[in-house]
Amino acid sequence: MDKQPHRFAGPPGQEDMPYLLTPGPLTTSRGVKAAMLADWGSRDVEFRRVVSGIRKGLLDLAGCDDSYECVIMQGSGTFAIEAALGAFCPKSESRTLVVANGAYGDRAAAILGKLGRPVVKIDKGDSAAPSVEDVTRALDADPAISHVWIIHCETTSGIVNPIEEIARAVKARGKVYMVDAMSSFGAIPVHMGVGMDVMVSSSNKCIEGVPGFSYVLVKRDMLEASKGMSHSVVLDLFEQWKGLEANGQFRFTPPTHALVAFHTAMKEHAAEGGVAARGARYQRNAQILIRGMRDMGFSTLLSDNQAGPIIQTFLTPRDKNFHFETFYEELRRRGFAIYPGKLTKRPSFRIGTIGKVDEAVMNGVLKAIREVLANMKVTDLAPLEG
Amino acid sequence: MDKQPHRFAGPPGQEDMPYLLTPGPLTTSRGVKAAMLADWGSRDVEFRRVVSGIRKGLLDLAGCDDSYECVIMQGSGTFAIEAALGAFCPKSESRTLVVANGAYGDRAAAILGKLGRPVVKIDKGDSAAPSVEDVTRALDADPAISHVWIIHCETTSGIVNPIEEIARAVKARGKVYMVDAMSSFGAIPVHMGVGMDVMVSSSNKCIEGVPGFSYVLVKRDMLEASKGMSHSVVLDLFEQWKGLEANGQFRFTPPTHALVAFHTAMKEHAAEGGVAARGARYQRNAQILIRGMRDMGFSTLLSDNQAGPIIQTFLTPRDKNFHFETFYEELRRRGFAIYPGKLTKRPSFRIGTIGKVDEAVMNGVLKAIREVLANMKVTDLAPLEG
Ligand SMILES: Cc1ncc(COP(=O)(O)O)c(C=O)c1O
Ligand SMILES: Cc1ncc(COP(=O)(O)O)c(C=O)c1O
Repeated sequence: MDKQPHRFAGPPGQEDMPYLLTPGPLTTSRGVKAAMLADWGSRDVEFRRVVSGIRKGLLDLAGCDDSYECVIMQGSGTFAIEAALGAFCPKSESRTLVVANGAYGDRAAAILGKLGRPVVKIDKGDSAAPSVEDVTRALDADPAISHVWIIHCETTSGIVNPIEEIARAVKARGKVYMVDAMSSFGAIPVHMGVGMDVMVSSSNKCIEGVPGFSYVLVKRDMLEASKGMSHSVVLDLFEQWKGLEANGQFRFTPPTHALVAFHTAMKEHAAEGGVAARGARYQRNAQILIRGMRDMGFSTLLSDNQAGPIIQTFLTPRDKNFHFETFYEELRRRGFAIYPGKLTKRPSFRIGTIGKVDEAVMNGVLKAIREVLANMKVTDLAPLEG
Repeated sequence: MDKQPHRFAGPPGQEDMPYLLTPGPLTTSRGVKAAMLADWGSRDVEFRRVVSGIRKGLLDLAGCDDSYECVIMQGSGTFAIEAALGAFCPKSESRTLVVANGAYGDRAAAILGKLGRPVVKIDKGDSAAPSVEDVTRALDADPAISHVWIIHCETTSGIVNPIEEIARAVKARGKVYMVDAMSSFGAIPVHMGVGMDVMVSSSNKCIEGVPGFSYVLVKRDMLEASKGMSHSVVLDLFEQWKGLEANGQFRFTPPTHALVAFHTAMKEHAAEGGVAARGARYQRNAQILIRGMRDMGFSTLLSDNQAGPIIQTFLTPRDKNFHFETFYEELRRRGFAIYPGKLTKRPSFRIGTIGKVDEAVMNGVLKAIREVLANMKVTDLAPLEG
């Protein structure tokens, strides 16, 4: 086992930390992490400038005009999801349609259930995208639906859903359109102007920050109308927004280091060339990985026009010598941490193609996979049925 | 204005970052921040070891026997407070008594109100501690009270409440006893065995980590009984615990860098000599600061036997030349960020004495204050009435 430098991601003294080939937390740049080497006062003017720079930058990145606001929420991505569902989804007058094709759609529906908000679900399984017709059929059959929640990249499989086409159909019917763009925002273009009222994402995805917070972009009039709607104090988006607007401060202690790191990550994102360049790098990562894996004999869960650049799902080989735990551990030892589990119904595993990783890292993981398969004496890579 | 090295806290290239003399986020050690220079996979075995080390270490620090559990929650301290109140406080059968003497007690009562949980409050204003009699009187007058919530160090003023004496009285009456030890845990001894059923604190207080998460220590049987109680998915302590127990992983992305930094902070806390040594350093900081401020002519809000080592509240001087904004800004320029606002009803300002700061920093801020007062031509430091 040779230790080529590109294979390991850690800082001096921790060179053996692996690259993270997962849907997040990701490998981030040295610069992003170095930004955490100072302690910032959360009420200090300089920190407040960082926060307002982030809020403004995110709105710009999503192509928002000034009818939108950005509210940052402490916690992980699901905290912003629950906050948004709690702020905007009706309590009884009407109901929310969740368009699900994987774990994250299911989870949004479950959160609505927990909050006692009426919910109906389209369930496309975990490897097919919803079509415009799927959505219009549901809307036309049930006029009580007033809100639609959909996932942009369903990270369960990596599939990218046609959110813009669906936006037009939803807006033509006058419904509120809400998008979970957690794993795509910053790498796949999102233009809220096409008819998106709400979008949520988080710090540790394609902007390549570290985990610690999430954010909601939303039409200001919806935010204003959400006063008193939340089921929670800490997750109350309206109050969080009021606090930020009043004096630029968070109501409750913000993750200062994660925010300052994210501010650096946004600058690096712009310097790389913005969404187009970031997306192109990930696309290239994905192409190299998929081609290399297919060359070995692996199959992908999704067809090439379904799969996005975020994460790739490979079908588990039927070879009896293939044990996922060993495969995972041996790759880990070689400097690559892939996602340690499966989410889809079909036996599969996932390798992320996002984060501060490039062609060299992709070639590195392919080489490591070849080595590990040889050591495991795995030769039959045709997919396991089941 | 001379720039002595002890006056500035920033890393190379950012030497002019100030010391944070606030109730958090705090100045942390270089080692704690350097621990954030690597990206850890949140599902990786090494990271799971860090998490279980933190959970076990916190239980040990609070003197818990094995009837207690530790649950970590993403977000700030208030997230753990809302999670705990939502998990453990009765919905209708009985009610919760909040013993308030400042903003954090008021906030806990407001959260219960928002959650629709019956609540009664003892209100001691913001500069007096509740006595055992205050609590027993309230309990004896209202048998419907089943739970008591109290603050250890009320950071509004810095007052330390007699939580152990009150614990005995509360347990003698068979009530559930819950403590917000956010700003004290790690510096003032907390022994849950004296009768504490629940304790909450967070990452960026006296253990000297960075902000990003909070935690709840709680009797396992109460946690088990809380299944289904929460009003929220993300704040559901029972489900968070089940997730951590099942496979050592968080249900939703954890703030990996903040957790790894905290793990380092716990080691540094132990190396310094644990709670006793940490508390002694803060005590010494407080003594130096209070003595120096009194020498100049300032008065404290609290008497010496009320004030704890966490944060010190000084009464605003009546001198017409004293403008708090200028005072704050000029101290900031000299490398010391104090708390930029007031919380108590009496005009006052606060200076924190916690974080990676010592005698030299305290002498530094005193020198800076003398300079700034001279420049502002402030001479009459007797307190403003009102
Ligand atoms: C599409 C999508 N939604 C929601 C989440 C949940 O985010 P978190 O784990 O930060 O709570 C993820 C995380 O990968 C995601 O990819
Ligand atoms: C006693 C006490 N409770 C609660 C909090 C709230 O914590 P956070 O700002 O992390 O939400 C604080 C913060 O200083 C505190 O001191």
